[in-house]
Amino acid sequence: MVLKVFGNPISTCTVRVLACIEEIGLEYELVPVDLTTGEHKRPPHIHRNPFGQIPALQDGDLILFESRVITRYLVRKYGKGADLLREGSLVDSVAVDQWMEVETQHFNGPISTLVFQHVFLPVFFGGSTDEKVVAAEAEKLGKVLDVYEAKLSKTKFLAGDFYSLADLHHLSYGHYLITNTPHGSLFHSRPHVKAWWDAISARPASKKVLAALSFSS
Amino acid sequence: MVLKVFGNPISTCTVRVLACIEEIGLEYELVPVDLTTGEHKRPPHIHRNPFGQIPALQDGDLILFESRVITRYLVRKYGKGADLLREGSLVDSVAVDQWMEVETQHFNGPISTLVFQHVFLPVFFGGSTDEKVVAAEAEKLGKVLDVYEAKLSKTKFLAGDFYSLADLHHLSYGHYLITNTPHGSLFHSRPHVKAWWDAISARPASKKVLAALSFSS
Repeated sequence: MVLKVFGNPISTCTVRVLACIEEIGLEYELVPVDLTTGEHKRPPHIHRNPFGQIPALQDGDLILFESRVITRYLVRKYGKGADLLREGSLVDSVAVDQWMEVETQHFNGPISTLVFQHVFLPVFFGGSTDEKVVAAEAEKLGKVLDVYEAKLSKTKFLAGDFYSLADLHHLSYGHYLITNTPHGSLFHSRPHVKAWWDAISARPASKKVLAALSFSS
Repeated sequence: MVLKVFGNPISTCTVRVLACIEEIGLEYELVPVDLTTGEHKRPPHIHRNPFGQIPALQDGDLILFESRVITRYLVRKYGKGADLLREGSLVDSVAVDQWMEVETQHFNGPISTLVFQHVFLPVFFGGSTDEKVVAAEAEKLGKVLDVYEAKLSKTKFLAGDFYSLADLHHLSYGHYLITNTPHGSLFHSRPHVKAWWDAISARPASKKVLAALSFSS
């Protein structure tokens, strides 16, 4: 049975899962969930994710939600070749976990607010970008990327000299920020962050899924 | 070499790590980091965690930060007997991951705000509880716990009929909320959530670390 991803091709969290699927090289079906009609808050989707969010994954009888849980599962079950978690090595795998958690706890907050303010709010909700919020979140993201710059001056990727889920999880929001907001310099002005971004976004799997995310507001 | 935990005995995230250490039954040394003098923002602590937060773990040459990364590492390295991740079973381990992520993404936000507003803000910062914020976050937490109630009507613990890190990660904030704020009814009014809370907080390891967290504002 083919994997089913319930989501939306321009949703950052859906694209996080698709990037992982493409990296491993799996077949899948993307089943659209129409957020504009509240389909994610009603059955049958609310039975896939009781919090009414996308994406969800169906693999046979198993249904999962939360993009970072789905990617970890896919790598464990199907990704032996891609080895994006490095679970064969305790030291490598904890480094992957370390930087996956940094993405979750430090990177995701400010970058998701910036993308919301510059893209989703004006394009889909008819609102205006709040420049005060933007300034505060851009400053926060800059400080997070200072930590990345220091780390990436020592290793090619976040968890070490190997590509992992810790890098992959940054792709969708990073691409939105660089392509569709005026804050791309947060990445490009930091040479090691820039080199890292160029490397991870140029991977064939990344290019395939990120192409769908470029549009102007 | 004995494990070193750099943190504070009343910090929720430090206690999350200590609960795991006690559950596994490891020896450790708690090295205090004085937040009131900004010790967490300066060397040497800033070298342990570049984001300047507690806790951090030192295990020989390895230094880690982020409480949920530390617990995962400790279980992998030392916790074969406790088996709090169930990595021997793909289905069980993804269930643990699923509910660990629910704790991170849905439970932690509202409960940490409630505990901040009722405990840390008045006790340590001389501020006043903002009742409007409290009302909004209590409503959010109630909705999250409705999802927990439905899940816990089917299985004894969050990931299944076994105790795991997914449960353990809730201990410190749950205890603060129930013991030191007026919102304990959010847990106690939901019978399956109450039974689950009673079970996880009564474990010897839990009682040992949670006793330090009870104080009145």
